[in-house]
Amino acid sequence: MHPLIDQLHQQIDRKKSLVCVGLDSDSTKMPAKFLQLANPQLAFNQWVIDQVWDFTVAFKLNTAFYEARGELGWTAMRETVRYIKQRDPQLLVIADAKRADIGNTNDQYVQAFFDDLGFDAITIHPYLGQEAIQPFLNREDKLAIILCRTSNQGAGELQDLTIAGQPLWQRVATNVVQHWNVNDNCMLVVGATYPDEMKQIRQQVGDDLFFLVPGVGAQGGDVRSVLTAGANARTNGLLLNSSRGIIFADNPQSAAMSLQQEIQQVREEVYASARR
Amino acid sequence: MHPLIDQLHQQIDRKKSLVCVGLDSDSTKMPAKFLQLANPQLAFNQWVIDQVWDFTVAFKLNTAFYEARGELGWTAMRETVRYIKQRDPQLLVIADAKRADIGNTNDQYVQAFFDDLGFDAITIHPYLGQEAIQPFLNREDKLAIILCRTSNQGAGELQDLTIAGQPLWQRVATNVVQHWNVNDNCMLVVGATYPDEMKQIRQQVGDDLFFLVPGVGAQGGDVRSVLTAGANARTNGLLLNSSRGIIFADNPQSAAMSLQQEIQQVREEVYASARR
Repeated sequence: MHPLIDQLHQQIDRKKSLVCVGLDSDSTKMPAKFLQLANPQLAFNQWVIDQVWDFTVAFKLNTAFYEARGELGWTAMRETVRYIKQRDPQLLVIADAKRADIGNTNDQYVQAFFDDLGFDAITIHPYLGQEAIQPFLNREDKLAIILCRTSNQGAGELQDLTIAGQPLWQRVATNVVQHWNVNDNCMLVVGATYPDEMKQIRQQVGDDLFFLVPGVGAQGGDVRSVLTAGANARTNGLLLNSSRGIIFADNPQSAAMSLQQEIQQVREEVYASARR
Repeated sequence: MHPLIDQLHQQIDRKKSLVCVGLDSDSTKMPAKFLQLANPQLAFNQWVIDQVWDFTVAFKLNTAFYEARGELGWTAMRETVRYIKQRDPQLLVIADAKRADIGNTNDQYVQAFFDDLGFDAITIHPYLGQEAIQPFLNREDKLAIILCRTSNQGAGELQDLTIAGQPLWQRVATNVVQHWNVNDNCMLVVGATYPDEMKQIRQQVGDDLFFLVPGVGAQGGDVRSVLTAGANARTNGLLLNSSRGIIFADNPQSAAMSLQQEIQQVREEVYASARR
């Protein structure tokens, strides 16, 4: 098992949680008190991280929200990773960067997100194929999280197109599990808003692959449907991400605890039934 | 016609060139004299821009090379756009960022690349579909350049998959021209290394759509094949991008002029034959 996945299992066992908190720290939505500080996004993130810590097994930073703040945003991203790693070096921190370019360019993204910013994992577009994204896959010490079935309403426009009787998202899942995952360092993005597809993907890829599941909360994904569809036999193999629903709640701590409890309740039911 | 495309036609007519220079300004490959300066990438870019100016109708910054330098790289990107726009506000500057996320996140990328950094255009992954990338398409004053057929060797792994008798790249081209391009602000990325596919795409989408064509030079794309395959009737509808082959040449000015002349020679032959 990949060391980062092993650590993730331990966090899940210890915190009894599958919650990933998405730090989509839009400056226009955070409490006004942070806007007067030197780096509002960083200060807000540190406050949120402390609030949600006990219920959270991974943090995900969507890079778009930081890029929109330019150099200061980039610093916020860097210092947020550092802040999390200082509290616990073994807590997974994901760059939700949705990158992918040709090989020699991906070397630069590897340097930026893994080596410079210190993320453990990065989300990746599959469109250019394995040969292009090999620089990410070659990093045995990190995780590559491939977009398979995205959570957005119009995801099906290309992802549902039928290839030899299978939708494109299924082909992506097949290629990842059969070819891309030789270093056991791949995960898949599977949206909470598509439980039927998630169920098929779980059946297809087996129990070892972790899914990053966006779309719980603000986007309408349902915890019970997700766990019923996607849970595997050990720690369920799912990271349920909530962003806006937690970080912009009146009380992020309560919101994170509430999601953790909701998941845990369903999980205890599904956990047994998932030992198939 | 979109104002930016109209400006591009004028640049092409004035400079008799289809050359786009890719500022993939890898700090480890630039002359040592730049490394001692406050912002090596910016200083290098300014030098290259001045060298190649007379032969260049667009500049493309691949964001990965700047992200790998953190905050300083972000500043280099910002100041490079400013430098180009100060010389000529009507010269096209492309963010080769290869972004795409769900809608509310793309709003942030729009802010980052169009409003904050001042780019005219951005490259986009198609995998999430039109509904997701609508924030880019909605910007009538900017261009969205959709990855259709990429230049990398392994591009076919997903892009060649057959859907109802057509490869996926063809479906992407169809969807862009029929649905995504309502504001006339779309272009396509079509790699120079795949002239057969380029020919089919041109026949399919008609003469109005511009192609951004990476892969000339270091990646092995051939100017004659590209022009024969992809030229349209007016100014040929192609931007031929060369990055490493120009900016890391001993003499970038000569390299840019040489590419411009090679293109122009072929172009004068093809131009007539392309008036079909």
